[in-house]
Amino acid sequence: MLISAKEIASYLNGEVEGNLDVQVHAPSKIEDGEEGTISFLANPKYEHYAYTTNASILIVSNEFEPTDDISSTLIKVPDVYASIAKLLEKFSDSKSQKFQISSFAFVEKSAELHPEVSVDAYAVIKEHCEIGQRTIIYPHVFIDQSVKIGKDCIIYAGAKIYSNTIIGDNCIIHAGSVIGCDGFGYSKDDQGAYTKIKHVGNVIIENDVEIGANVTIDRATMGSTIIRRGAKIDNLVQIAHNVEIGEDTAMAAQSGIAGSTKVGDRVIVGGQAGIVGHRKIADEVQIQAQSGVISNVKEVGKRLYGYPAIDYHSYLKAYAIMKNLPDLKQQVKELQDQINELKKM
Amino acid sequence: MLISAKEIASYLNGEVEGNLDVQVHAPSKIEDGEEGTISFLANPKYEHYAYTTNASILIVSNEFEPTDDISSTLIKVPDVYASIAKLLEKFSDSKSQKFQISSFAFVEKSAELHPEVSVDAYAVIKEHCEIGQRTIIYPHVFIDQSVKIGKDCIIYAGAKIYSNTIIGDNCIIHAGSVIGCDGFGYSKDDQGAYTKIKHVGNVIIENDVEIGANVTIDRATMGSTIIRRGAKIDNLVQIAHNVEIGEDTAMAAQSGIAGSTKVGDRVIVGGQAGIVGHRKIADEVQIQAQSGVISNVKEVGKRLYGYPAIDYHSYLKAYAIMKNLPDLKQQVKELQDQINELKKM
Amino acid sequence: MLISAKEIASYLNGEVEGNLDVQVHAPSKIEDGEEGTISFLANPKYEHYAYTTNASILIVSNEFEPTDDISSTLIKVPDVYASIAKLLEKFSDSKSQKFQISSFAFVEKSAELHPEVSVDAYAVIKEHCEIGQRTIIYPHVFIDQSVKIGKDCIIYAGAKIYSNTIIGDNCIIHAGSVIGCDGFGYSKDDQGAYTKIKHVGNVIIENDVEIGANVTIDRATMGSTIIRRGAKIDNLVQIAHNVEIGEDTAMAAQSGIAGSTKVGDRVIVGGQAGIVGHRKIADEVQIQAQSGVISNVKEVGKRLYGYPAIDYHSYLKAYAIMKNLPDLKQQVKELQDQINELKKM
Repeated sequence: MLISAKEIASYLNGEVEGNLDVQVHAPSKIEDGEEGTISFLANPKYEHYAYTTNASILIVSNEFEPTDDISSTLIKVPDVYASIAKLLEKFSDSKSQKFQISSFAFVEKSAELHPEVSVDAYAVIKEHCEIGQRTIIYPHVFIDQSVKIGKDCIIYAGAKIYSNTIIGDNCIIHAGSVIGCDGFGYSKDDQGAYTKIKHVGNVIIENDVEIGANVTIDRATMGSTIIRRGAKIDNLVQIAHNVEIGEDTAMAAQSGIAGSTKVGDRVIVGGQAGIVGHRKIADEVQIQAQSGVISNVKEVGKRLYGYPAIDYHSYLKAYAIMKNLPDLKQQVKELQDQINELKKM
Repeated sequence: MLISAKEIASYLNGEVEGNLDVQVHAPSKIEDGEEGTISFLANPKYEHYAYTTNASILIVSNEFEPTDDISSTLIKVPDVYASIAKLLEKFSDSKSQKFQISSFAFVEKSAELHPEVSVDAYAVIKEHCEIGQRTIIYPHVFIDQSVKIGKDCIIYAGAKIYSNTIIGDNCIIHAGSVIGCDGFGYSKDDQGAYTKIKHVGNVIIENDVEIGANVTIDRATMGSTIIRRGAKIDNLVQIAHNVEIGEDTAMAAQSGIAGSTKVGDRVIVGGQAGIVGHRKIADEVQIQAQSGVISNVKEVGKRLYGYPAIDYHSYLKAYAIMKNLPDLKQQVKELQDQINELKKM
Repeated sequence: MLISAKEIASYLNGEVEGNLDVQVHAPSKIEDGEEGTISFLANPKYEHYAYTTNASILIVSNEFEPTDDISSTLIKVPDVYASIAKLLEKFSDSKSQKFQISSFAFVEKSAELHPEVSVDAYAVIKEHCEIGQRTIIYPHVFIDQSVKIGKDCIIYAGAKIYSNTIIGDNCIIHAGSVIGCDGFGYSKDDQGAYTKIKHVGNVIIENDVEIGANVTIDRATMGSTIIRRGAKIDNLVQIAHNVEIGEDTAMAAQSGIAGSTKVGDRVIVGGQAGIVGHRKIADEVQIQAQSGVISNVKEVGKRLYGYPAIDYHSYLKAYAIMKNLPDLKQQVKELQDQINELKKM
C-alpha cells in the first residue's frame, strides 16, 4: 500500500506542512525512520529525533513547534496517540479472514457456531457452547461445556476457557490465558488440612475487553467473577474468585486482585501491584506499580503508592526521608550531644 | 435437586431454627439470595445481609446471635466454611464420569493406563507413563516420558508435565501449569556468558495437592523438587528447583520460592510474596502478601511482613512512623531551634 | 554408564586425591550422596556434608582445604559450577534424537523445515515459516505465519509463537511461553475508553537464549522487541513491547520490564523485580529481588535495592533504621523532655 500525505491528513483530520504528495508504504519508529515510511512524535522525550529522522512523513501534535529544521513532511493532529491507533490499523495486513472449521478441530455436535466462525486446527469446543459471528478461534484453544462467546472475538492459541464462562462481543483473549478455573478456596480442619470448596459460579466478560497472555481469572465460588465493558488486562495478571473489574479499567502486567474485591471504573492498576480481598476501590483510582492496597479506597481519582499503599505524594515525601534515615539518626545523636553540653553548663 | 432444611441439617449435623420443610434447589451468595436458594453467613462483615436476604435457608455459625428479624430459616453449624464445602460438593453437578480414551488423543503403547482413565482429545501421553484409576486428563495435556500419576487426579486442559515427574493420588492440576521444566541454573564463564546446567532431577507431588492455573514448578538439578501432601498452590506461582513445600502449606497467587528453599508444614505464603533461595522456613509461619523473606525463619508460627520481611507487628509499627517521617524530621528541626535558643541564653 | 575418578578428572582437567579407580554411575546431592555416585561441594554452606556424605567421589574447588576426614575420593577443579554443568551434561541421557514430523502434526505446505527437524503430535506450523536443522518442536506448539527459527533449538510443549517472530540458533523456549503477543498499548478517548493500538512490529530472539515456562514477551508496536545473545529469562517473566534485553543478561522468575526500556549486557534482575517503561539500564547492573527501578541507571555494575530502588547499601542502612523507627521517635520525645527541663532552669 502506498499512501500520500494528503490522503493521510484527510483520514486523520490533520493538517499537512510540507509535501502533500510524498508517499509512504509503512510505519516506522522515529529513531529508525527511513525514506518511504511514516513516523510519530508522541512522547516529548523523543523530540530530538524529529530533527534527524529520515521518515518521509512525521505525525506531530497541533501544539508542536519545531526548534530546528525538519526534513520530514509534518502532519499536525489533535491527538497523536489516537492517530497512531487509526494509522496502524490501516497499515496492518487486515487481509480478509476466511471463516471455516478446520477438519482437525474437534467441535461437539451440540455446540452452536455461527456459520461465519473460524476454528483452527486442534481446537476443542465442548457441548452446548455458543459462538457468535466472525469470532476467530486459534489452534489448541479449549472451550469447555456451555461457554458463550459473542461476535467479533479473537481467542488466541492455547487459551483455555472453563465451563459456563460468558464472553461478550469484540473481545480479545491472548494465548495461554485461563478463564474460569477454580478459585483458591478451602475450609480448614482442626489439624490444619484443607478441604476444597467447590466453585459453582462462573466468569462473565463483557464487551470490548482485551485480556493478555497467560492471564488467570478464577470462576466465582457462587455467582460470577465479572470483567466489565472495555477493561484491559495485561499479561500474567491474576484475578481471583468473585472479583469485579470496572468499565475501562486497565491492569498492567503481573498485577493481582484477591477474592471478592470490587474495582471501580477507569481505575489504573500498575504492574506487579496487588489488592487484598474483600475491598472496594473507587472509580479512577490510580495504583502505582508494585503497590499493595490493603484498605477500601473511597476517594474517586485517588493516587496510591507504597506497601501498604498510602497517598502517592505522601509516600514519595516519606520515602525521600527514609532513604536518608542515617542522616536523621545522626542529627538526633548530635542533638543529644548538644543537650548534654548544655546540661553541664 | 430439591432438598429440605431438615435433610440439609442432618447432612451437616446442624440445627434448624425455622421451617424444617422449606426446600432449596441451588446455593446463592447472601447478598443475591433468592427464594428457593440456600446462602451462607461466614464472614461477619456480611452480617447485615442476613437481615435482608431472600434466601430460603441461611447457614450460620452456632455462635451467631441475630440482632434483628431474619426471614430465612437458619441452620446453625459448628463450622460454616466446612459446611459450605460439603454443600457445594452436594450441589455441584458431579455427573457420573465416563472413562474413555478419546480417539483423538495420542497415547504411546508403552504407557500404562488403568482401564478407568479418561483422556480427552489431543492429549499426548508419552512412553512408559503410568496413570491411575479414575484420573481425568483434559484436552491438550502433555505428559512426557516416564511420568507417574496416581488415582482420582484431574489434569486440566493444556497442563504440561515434563519427564519423570511423580504425582500422587487425588491431586488437581489446573490448566496451563508446567510441572518439571528446567530450573534456572547456569555456570558463568570469565566473560560473563552462561553455560546451562543440565537438570537431571525431577518433581514429586504427593497426595491431595491442588495446583492452580499457569503455575511453574521446576525440576531439581539433582534429586527432587517436592510438594508435600495436602499443599495448595494458587495461580501463577513459581517454585524453583530443589524447593520443598511442606504438608498443608498454602501459597497464594503470584508468590514465588527461589531454589533449594525448604518451606515447613501449614505455612501460609501471601500473594506476590517471595522467599530467596537456600532458606528454611519453620512450620506454620505466615508471610504477609508481597513480603520478601531473605533469612531463615526458625520460630514456629512466626508472622512476617515487609521488604525485607521482619516481624509483622514491628513492621506495622515502623511503617506507621515511616509514613509520617516528614513530621519526625520537622520535630528534629524544631528541637535544634530550641537548643539554639537555649545556647544563646 | 560407569566412569572412574581418573576418567572424570581427565574430562574436567581436575586432580584426584584418593582412589583413582573408584567408579560412579550417577550424580547425587551432597546431602543424599550414596556409594557409586558423584557429588559436588559448590556452596561453602554445605561444607559439613563433605565430612558425612557417602558419595564415592566429591568434586571440590582447588582452594578447598578439608578440616576433617573425608571418605570420598576428591577431585579438585578450578570452577565447581562449570564442572557440574559439564558432568551433568555427560550423565544426562542425551539419547540420539530421531528427526521426524509426526503424522499428527499440522504443517502448512509453504513452511520450510530442514529435513532434520522434529515436530511432535498436534504441533501447528503456519504458512511461510522457516525452521533450522536439528530443531525440536514438542507437542501442542503453535507457530504462526512467517516465523523463523534457527538450528539446534528446542521449543517445549504448548509454547505459542506469534507471526513474524525471529529466533536464532541454539535457543530453548520452555512450555507454555508466549512470544510475540500484542503489547499493552491503547489510545484513550475523552470518556476514558480505550482504542487498541495495532502492534505491527515483532520479536527478535538472538542465539543462545533460554526462556523459561509461561513467560510472556510482547511484540513491538513498530520495530522489534529484542532479546540479545545469551540472555536467560526465568519462568513467568513479562517483557513488554519494544524492550531490549542485553547480551548475557539474566532475569529471575516473575520479574517484569515495562515498554521500551533498554536493559544492558550482563545485567542481573532479581525475582519479582520490575523496571518501569522508557528507561535505560547500564551494563552489569544488579537489581535485587522485588526492587522497583523507576529511573535510568547510568553507572555500570551499580547494585540496586528498594521500592523505588536506590543504592543497595544505602537501602540496607536506611531500612535498618526504619525497622527501629519507634526507638528513634522515642529518642526524639526524650530529647524534647530534656529540653523542657533545661528551659525550666
